[in-house]
Order: sequence, then structure tokens, then C-alpha cells
Amino acid sequence: MYRFKPELRIPGPVPVPTEVLGRMSQPMINHRGKIFKDVFPQVLARLQPLFGTKNPIFMVTGSGTAGMETAVANLVAPDTPVLCLVGGFFGRRWAEICQAYRAKLHVLEFPWGSGIDADQVGDYLKQYPEIEVIFMVHNESSTAVLNDVEAVARARGRSEALLVVDAVSSLGGTPVEMDAWGVDVVVSASQKCLMTPPGTAFIAVSPKAKEFMAKNESGRYYFDLRKYEQFLEKGETPFTPNINNVFALDKALEMLETEGFANVFARHRLMRDMMRAGAKALGLELVVEDKDASPTVTAVKYPEADAFRARIRDTYGVEFAGGQGPFANQIFRVGHMGYATPLDVLTALAVLEIDQKKFGCAVEAAEQVLDRS
Amino acid sequence: MYRFKPELRIPGPVPVPTEVLGRMSQPMINHRGKIFKDVFPQVLARLQPLFGTKNPIFMVTGSGTAGMETAVANLVAPDTPVLCLVGGFFGRRWAEICQAYRAKLHVLEFPWGSGIDADQVGDYLKQYPEIEVIFMVHNESSTAVLNDVEAVARARGRSEALLVVDAVSSLGGTPVEMDAWGVDVVVSASQKCLMTPPGTAFIAVSPKAKEFMAKNESGRYYFDLRKYEQFLEKGETPFTPNINNVFALDKALEMLETEGFANVFARHRLMRDMMRAGAKALGLELVVEDKDASPTVTAVKYPEADAFRARIRDTYGVEFAGGQGPFANQIFRVGHMGYATPLDVLTALAVLEIDQKKFGCAVEAAEQVLDRS
Repeated sequence: MYRFKPELRIPGPVPVPTEVLGRMSQPMINHRGKIFKDVFPQVLARLQPLFGTKNPIFMVTGSGTAGMETAVANLVAPDTPVLCLVGGFFGRRWAEICQAYRAKLHVLEFPWGSGIDADQVGDYLKQYPEIEVIFMVHNESSTAVLNDVEAVARARGRSEALLVVDAVSSLGGTPVEMDAWGVDVVVSASQKCLMTPPGTAFIAVSPKAKEFMAKNESGRYYFDLRKYEQFLEKGETPFTPNINNVFALDKALEMLETEGFANVFARHRLMRDMMRAGAKALGLELVVEDKDASPTVTAVKYPEADAFRARIRDTYGVEFAGGQGPFANQIFRVGHMGYATPLDVLTALAVLEIDQKKFGCAVEAAEQVLDRS
Repeated sequence: MYRFKPELRIPGPVPVPTEVLGRMSQPMINHRGKIFKDVFPQVLARLQPLFGTKNPIFMVTGSGTAGMETAVANLVAPDTPVLCLVGGFFGRRWAEICQAYRAKLHVLEFPWGSGIDADQVGDYLKQYPEIEVIFMVHNESSTAVLNDVEAVARARGRSEALLVVDAVSSLGGTPVEMDAWGVDVVVSASQKCLMTPPGTAFIAVSPKAKEFMAKNESGRYYFDLRKYEQFLEKGETPFTPNINNVFALDKALEMLETEGFANVFARHRLMRDMMRAGAKALGLELVVEDKDASPTVTAVKYPEADAFRARIRDTYGVEFAGGQGPFANQIFRVGHMGYATPLDVLTALAVLEIDQKKFGCAVEAAEQVLDRS
């Protein structure tokens, strides 16, 4: 029955290199022992250039959402005035978590598929100067929008509000410049551009955010970053970590470092441009305009997308993601992040062509983008 | 420099069988796709006999403490009157988590190294009938005590209090009979007797506990079991899970099932009896009396234990755990749980003998226990 290999083209979890998977089979060690302490703090330090920061980075064993909740649990007390910028599924998730923590919740909604309008954010903050924390998503993978974090950071103007960014599906695939942009908390996770299996989240914290967290008297335990800070001084985590994921990430970082981060980012931009050129050549409509387009995932409008996706998966082994929320069954999404290459984009386009019996046009358009790069 | 293999004899994480580690290298798949849905609910169902329950079991990506906090987050609102039974480090952890959730906290302390006295619990509940939830530890790995959960459950008498049990370091190594004992919530984790790397916690919930949780209006998100229940109906988790751990656990369960759970439990009892007989033959003092002794970990009194442990680890590759809290540097602890056999106990005893230049006596005593078994 073997004819096509499974090709996972969803926006995470993404294919993991065999070299990295091999590290998942590392024999078990003591998480309070020397071997772990020799690797763990170095892995976190090697994440700093990807976060664009000199701030400490903490690791929580859990999904990306656990990382998001860690930010909220440490920053938000009941009635803390917060502003969530919502233009998709994960922006909405920020709002839901803040609500669970009884924040005084402000929400600025943006149309799904459009980037966050920084001017609107600036105006809102002038109107509600009491807002203390802003939550936004860098790469809104539900819509395939890359938001301009720097513009939002700047739009704060005289507001002292902290800016918290979900960079789960961007970090490692596109530049994140926490310090240069003036971001206070950045959250990411292992299973996207970091090419590592799911199970670990990362949270970078600025001194200003740390000070704000110290004043928060709300209860927290598993997500309490004060504990993580205390244990990181010893090269440890407060609770038994996902040891194998740390070893896997060590290897994945080595691979990204060998390629060079600038080359990694250029590869992602190239895959975006190829995917978009190919989809356009097929006459398909993209969800997002060029200026807001994500380098890690592309969303394509497609009627009855779910049946189409099932057909492509069952026939060719290529798995695309569907739409969420208002986009359910209206779009499909092609992940091109982490361990993905321009040739993977070509095969993604090829199956679209074959399915539509429009042979060659999309691949040709994408090849020309590749050739010009 | 190779002369001795590393031998991890700590009470978790424990050595993971190569067969199980191999499954950690499973290629990445979609956590919303068919392959995952075919495996995940079955793995949870196969845990039910180890929990001794027909209740649903939920999986949270996180450490054992994340599992404990999941229980608290769903059961405890501010001022919920709870009773924590504390006789060691993990009993204390229950109290700390409940405190973080602003419970009205009652604590019954028992001497470290002694089992929980169920009669005292019964008396306390008569005195404070308002208590709604009791938190206890089954196997207190910090002291090597196995507490009598059934006796505590019975001691509730007319109290309607829910009983929540941390079975992190017992489940899979000794019988847990959630339904027969009348326990309402049982928490466990992958990295102990389940012979799987750390990163996943499991929470079984009785109908009575579920009803109680439904009335809790406190905010919760990542640990919200209502979400986990909703997604489990589709064979999924609400947040991207530790996919590789699920495959590893699938294999570990297969190995435990092949051995037979009754045989697994007998093996743990045998290792306990061998370890204790050997330590006694060496003239060492055990922390715990026979009646309260854990089948998964043994604690031995030893002055300047930490220097001794370092010597044993560096000389022979055998790694014991140290003491926590009042026992720091006063004891060492030998883990004999999960992927451990009677021969591992013999080598643990052998290095003790060699270190003390009392050749043969401990191994002989343990061999006799093995021979009689």
C-alpha cells in the first residue's frame, strides 16, 4: 500500500528531523544531576538570539498554551486592566485566558486575515490609559497573518503598558527582536519552527515585566516564574521537566545554528513567496494580503476545504490544516515552518495542481521565485 | 574511561526501556489526525486497570505537579475548606498548591517517615465536618512511606469530603483501587512506575468529583478538565500534547501488560523486601517501619549522605537520591520502581557493601529473600 510518504504540512507540530528524533531516545537521567545541568541552561541561552534578547528565558513543561498561561498567571491579578488584540484563534485565546484570571478585559478586534492596526492600538491606549498589559500574537497561524510587533510596541507612545507577545509559530522562522522592539514578555514553544516535538514552552521576561510580576500577589504554583528563576540559578527546573525534549532541542538548535539564523529566516520567506506565487498561478485566492503574509504558514480560500483536504491527504499523503472559527471549512492552511524546504513547497503545489488538473503552472511560478532568490 | 554503566536508582525519573525510548523517536504526526486518535484514547483506557477504576482518565502535558495542580484548580475555589495530610515533601506540596488557590487550608501533620494515621483523620473530620476535599499522597517518595489510602477513605465515615490521591510514584508499581477504595481523584505521571519519560500527567475523576468540579466557578484554562473531557470525546486533547510520550506509554503499557500487573506488583514488593533485608544485614537503619514501607523506594539513614552518594555515583555509576526537607543529607533513597529488577537491587546493595568493606552480607540476605519468593 506504500506509494506516498506522509508529508505533514500543517502549522505545527511540524516534521522533526531524524537527528532530533534520535535525541528523544536519550537514556533517562537525573534532572537534578550534572548531565542535565550541563545542557539545560546552555539550551536556554542559545534560544536568546532567536528571541532577540539578553533577558532570561524560562522553560515550562507543557504546550504553547501553558506558556501563554504562564505569562498571564504571573502578570494578571483580578481586575488588572488588560488589552487583548484579537484577529484570530490565538488572539482570542489570550482573551480567554485573561478572562479565566478575572482580568478587567479590553478587547480590540481586527478582521480575521488582516494584520493588527497599530494606530488603532495607539488610539485605544490614549482612550484607556489605565491599561497595564497588552497581549498580542506575532504570527496568527489561524489566519496566516504576521503581525507587526514593533509597530504595536511603538504605538504604545506614553503608555507604560507591558507588551506580551505569543511568538509560538514565528520564533525560529522569522526575526523576533524582543529587546530592540521593547517587548516585555515573549512566549514560544518547541513544536513549530524549533523543529522539536511538542511538550515544552519558553517564556522570556524583561526586567520591567519581572518587576510587575513581583507585585502580583495572585496565587500561582506550576506556572510561578519566581520558582523557575530560583531553580534556573542551579541549572534546573522546579518540577521534573521533559528531559528528552531538552536534548532534542539541543540538537535542533545545533542544526539551525549550522544553517545560520539569517539563512533560516530567508528560507522561510522564500517558502512563503513560492507558496503564494504558486497559489496565485492556480487562480486560488489567498486569505492574507502580501504586506501581512506569514512566512511560516499560508492560508488559501477554498470552498468545502475539509473534503478537499481529506482527499489530498488520502491520495497523496500530504496533510494540510483546515480553517478555525469563522474560517472553518472555508480555507486550507499550508504549514511551511521548521524542518521544511522549498522542495516541500513544490510538492505541496504539485498535489494542488494534480487535484485541479492544471498541471505545471503553480510549480512553474514557484520555481521562478526560487530561481530569482 | 568506561568501566561502569550509569545506573539510575532514584525514585523517578526512572530508566526507560530501550523499546519505549524507541517510540520517543516516532515521526511527528498531526495531533488532530487519525493516527493519534487511534492510539490516545486506548492508552488512557489501558491505564484504567492500573488506577483501579472505570472512571475517565485525562492526560495533561506537564510534570506530576501539573497533574496535582489540575486536581486543585478544578476542585478548589477561594475559601473551599480542604484538609491536606502532610508527612513529607509531596504532602506539603498539596498544601502549597491549595494555598496558592486560596483554599481554607487545614493541615494534619504526621512525622516524616511514618504513615498517615487514618484514625486521626477520622477524628479531625468529626471536629471539622465542613471540610470538602482531602488531599493525600499514596507513596510519599520523600520518606519512602506507602500510605494506606483505603483506611483514610474509610475513616471519612459520615463526612462527604472528596478524597484526592497523589499516586505519582505508586501507580503501576503497587495496586491502586480507586473505585473499590472510594477515591474521588487520582493523579499520576509517566516518569515513575509507568517507565516512560517525564512530561505527561494523568488525572482520573469520579462522577462525584466531576459534579463538584462543575460547581466550581473559579477561573482555570490550561488545567480546565471540562475542556479535556470535551476533547477526549473526539479522542483528542484541547492543547497540543506530548505526542511522543503517548506513543512511548503505549509501548510501556504493552510491556507491563505482558508481564501481568499482578506480577509487576509482586516484583516491586520483592525488590522492597530484598532492599530492606540487605540494608539491615549491613547494619543500616531504615527510615520507615516494615508496615509502612514503600514498594517503590527505600530510604536509609546515613550520616553525611550526600558525600556518600557522590562517591558511589562517581565510583560505580550508581545514582541514589538524597533526602529532602528535614532529611536533607541525613538519608539516601534507593528507587526500585518501573524498569527495575531484583538484580538491580543486588547491585545497589553490592556497591554499599564494597563501600563499607562488608563484602557479601547484604547481597546474601537479599538473595535469600529472592530465593524464598
